[in-house]
Amino acid sequence: MYPLETGSFAPRNHWYVAAWSSEITRSPIERILLGDSVVFFRTTDGAVAALAGICPHRGFPLAKGELIADEIECPYHGLRFRADGACTLVPSQKVVPGACRLRTYPVTERWQWVWIWMGDPELADEALIPDHFEAKLTDPEFRCAGGNYFDVPGRYVLLHDNLLDLNHVPFLHKGTFGGDGGGAIQIPEVTSGENWISCTFTQPAIDCPPFLVELLSYSGLVSRKYVSYFYAPCLHVILDSISALDAETGEAKPLGALLHIHAVTPATERSSHYFQGEGQNFSHTEPCLSKAFRSSEMVKAALEEDVSAAIEIEKSIELTNGTLPEILLLADKAAVLGRRMIQGLINQEKTAVRG
Amino acid sequence: MYPLETGSFAPRNHWYVAAWSSEITRSPIERILLGDSVVFFRTTDGAVAALAGICPHRGFPLAKGELIADEIECPYHGLRFRADGACTLVPSQKVVPGACRLRTYPVTERWQWVWIWMGDPELADEALIPDHFEAKLTDPEFRCAGGNYFDVPGRYVLLHDNLLDLNHVPFLHKGTFGGDGGGAIQIPEVTSGENWISCTFTQPAIDCPPFLVELLSYSGLVSRKYVSYFYAPCLHVILDSISALDAETGEAKPLGALLHIHAVTPATERSSHYFQGEGQNFSHTEPCLSKAFRSSEMVKAALEEDVSAAIEIEKSIELTNGTLPEILLLADKAAVLGRRMIQGLINQEKTAVRG
Amino acid sequence: MYPLETGSFAPRNHWYVAAWSSEITRSPIERILLGDSVVFFRTTDGAVAALAGICPHRGFPLAKGELIADEIECPYHGLRFRADGACTLVPSQKVVPGACRLRTYPVTERWQWVWIWMGDPELADEALIPDHFEAKLTDPEFRCAGGNYFDVPGRYVLLHDNLLDLNHVPFLHKGTFGGDGGGAIQIPEVTSGENWISCTFTQPAIDCPPFLVELLSYSGLVSRKYVSYFYAPCLHVILDSISALDAETGEAKPLGALLHIHAVTPATERSSHYFQGEGQNFSHTEPCLSKAFRSSEMVKAALEEDVSAAIEIEKSIELTNGTLPEILLLADKAAVLGRRMIQGLINQEKTAVRG
Repeated sequence: MYPLETGSFAPRNHWYVAAWSSEITRSPIERILLGDSVVFFRTTDGAVAALAGICPHRGFPLAKGELIADEIECPYHGLRFRADGACTLVPSQKVVPGACRLRTYPVTERWQWVWIWMGDPELADEALIPDHFEAKLTDPEFRCAGGNYFDVPGRYVLLHDNLLDLNHVPFLHKGTFGGDGGGAIQIPEVTSGENWISCTFTQPAIDCPPFLVELLSYSGLVSRKYVSYFYAPCLHVILDSISALDAETGEAKPLGALLHIHAVTPATERSSHYFQGEGQNFSHTEPCLSKAFRSSEMVKAALEEDVSAAIEIEKSIELTNGTLPEILLLADKAAVLGRRMIQGLINQEKTAVRG
Repeated sequence: MYPLETGSFAPRNHWYVAAWSSEITRSPIERILLGDSVVFFRTTDGAVAALAGICPHRGFPLAKGELIADEIECPYHGLRFRADGACTLVPSQKVVPGACRLRTYPVTERWQWVWIWMGDPELADEALIPDHFEAKLTDPEFRCAGGNYFDVPGRYVLLHDNLLDLNHVPFLHKGTFGGDGGGAIQIPEVTSGENWISCTFTQPAIDCPPFLVELLSYSGLVSRKYVSYFYAPCLHVILDSISALDAETGEAKPLGALLHIHAVTPATERSSHYFQGEGQNFSHTEPCLSKAFRSSEMVKAALEEDVSAAIEIEKSIELTNGTLPEILLLADKAAVLGRRMIQGLINQEKTAVRG
Repeated sequence: MYPLETGSFAPRNHWYVAAWSSEITRSPIERILLGDSVVFFRTTDGAVAALAGICPHRGFPLAKGELIADEIECPYHGLRFRADGACTLVPSQKVVPGACRLRTYPVTERWQWVWIWMGDPELADEALIPDHFEAKLTDPEFRCAGGNYFDVPGRYVLLHDNLLDLNHVPFLHKGTFGGDGGGAIQIPEVTSGENWISCTFTQPAIDCPPFLVELLSYSGLVSRKYVSYFYAPCLHVILDSISALDAETGEAKPLGALLHIHAVTPATERSSHYFQGEGQNFSHTEPCLSKAFRSSEMVKAALEEDVSAAIEIEKSIELTNGTLPEILLLADKAAVLGRRMIQGLINQEKTAVRG
């Protein structure tokens, strides 16, 4: 499906962000991921359980059930399931049918997220999750605040397109990020490798953006450099470094850096999960910039602009019966590379023969 | 369609509950039944008229029209139709075209309901409606109060599944019926015949449920016996008998019985009509238990739990593209029998040759 | 599609009303017309621009963008387009790709409307718009007030059916127009020519309708004559002339005439745009009858009755899977002629070979 090949949706043998760690508690929640209903909860030891979300008996959604110790009880007929998918109780009979069990999904917690593997569990190697250190996500010098979540009625590739092309910032975010010099119109330098793309672009000399003046205790000329990292098929981290610029000598002295963090996970063919957070490597005292920044009206409005772009383009696709003629620009290089990378991951799975 | 065979919806040559008798008045109402729009009203002699609900001239829904004596007037161009389907007036011309008439549906009133025959009118024999005496519905010793109605966005077989398997009571109705000992986890004794299924199960010794203590003027040990009757393809009556139990002698002395009454009629392929009432054979003085019971917050909440089960499972079916893998338990014997019975009625019609 | 032939939607090589002139300003608006998204705005010289509404780069709806002088800026990446469809700026690169341009639609302003040509632009001859003088729309003796607009979730032919058959007035508008003698049940005299249909019917002697008594400064017997004009495929004008009638001599003396003005333009296959206004040739002083009349609660309620007829019949079509059996009456002559005329225009285009 657009903008992928006909019949292509999303690669399954990869780690996807399923939820903020803080979202998974002793109250089960359901999330539709790559078309599957998955129920999440924590067992009493704090581990995350991820199970098929629909009871195999009669199809009732398990997330509406309660936890009995480490088991989830189907609210319809009281069947209980362990975190390993085994059914431990069918109240109306003594023997549990052998087929009565739930598919389990490999999960792990990294950074502030619960990651899930939607494909073949035997291939679910946690080592396949990059350490994301290069992008500073796991650098202890950065203090990060996550928690933004959007349920987006638009296909996931539209969100990747958006994140892989920051030239939209001065326009789509005219009234938010775009107004403070947050964006730059230029063809970024694009590099890529196996399952990753990186884009770099710089603003050599701009006035320090208003929202940073107070926090950096600096006003005046700055240079700003963005390095964005896309870890296919899910994560984007943008390292946004600000340096004080001596107008006379041209010397740049680092003031600090922000991290703009986004994860995108397919829900259904036409809807997506969007997780967003912010980080910083300076002013590690209260008030936390990244937390204040993340929850600021400006950032919320900017995120809603990004979400609305996906929603609006999804509507255009519907109006044009599932296809969308498009003209690609030089600045779309990274986005096009991203689509090809995702398509490649899908095609790999189609042709894969298990060893 | 699930859980029936592909292409199967509902048998037509049967009597279905179309409405509470009290719903049909001099103000026409439309109800979609087995995919057909039907308009209902009472003629001046009190008889129920059931006609195709869409004007044959231009497709306007007749239920938005007014009655002129015993005729319904199409609100668009004023065509008038008698209860026998004949068009008596086309205001703009003198001659009524021969083809301008409405299909009529055989109807009859039994108990507190209007029943309708959606199939071949020549086969519509009122004697095919069981007398329901065995289930006490028509036993004059029982005083009944109907009137609950739900328009359910879920396929009708899901409601039958629910009613044919009372093992859901302690779980789905945990906070309502289930809390007062109203349910029992056990494999019922199932008997069946042509177009009917009966399930029996007993609670040999429980404390009298709180809501009955006052009305039965009894507190203490009781035995409770449920006998449910399914009259395919529409009606369920559950006879719920309570006896005082002498703990020492084991002697059981009848205190009274309740009737839980449910009718299920297909609307469209994915929606249903659900009619519910309550009856009792004791305390035939005001306040009427069954009426108070029927309209109590507890019963309403319990019914909404049943309705929500159908809605939630319908969503699961949609998520899994119209099929729903399921594991059948011993306790599903009656539900499976019910599905087979309905499928059998459909198949009969497919192969039937009119005599 | 009903009531046209399978696969037929709407003729494209015709002028359609796209908007009230007053709707098109310096704030762009989007309107879906014959399935296409079109963005409208006025350039600084006041001319109307009508362009494909979806950016050819990434599919963002342009109507959410801003005008920069005479160009519309895509709110996503800042591409700018002139009213002639040319892309003048791609902010991220120096060269504008040749294919990066917007389809333009011929438009013209006539009476109080913006008209659009959705087909082959080379065939867009403004002379094809009738002068509508016969129907008094452009007669300077008539003072008109437009502005009513309805976005109707029903196919456009249903609105034409409605307007070509005024026998619905006494019934559908029982509580509005119908109550004041506004309608007459009769088979109108129908004449037609190339792309037009006219219906005439008269009320020889009725009491002056209450809402006219004050404005015509007359109470008593009147004769009323309706002449309706349908200019296929879009416009209906109904000339409604009232004459004082001398009961003794039978002499009729003109008191004045009203114009009831309606334009219908297909949006999608199952939705339509409906534009409505009123005119008069008397009392050309404030308060303007036609303006007061147009915005009166009675007229609004009557229009909503017409709109609701289209909506209700659209629902009937959906219930009967896209077809709708119907019986045609003598009074449907004009409506049937209208459908045939529209079907003929569609068929003409299918077989047309460009000269």
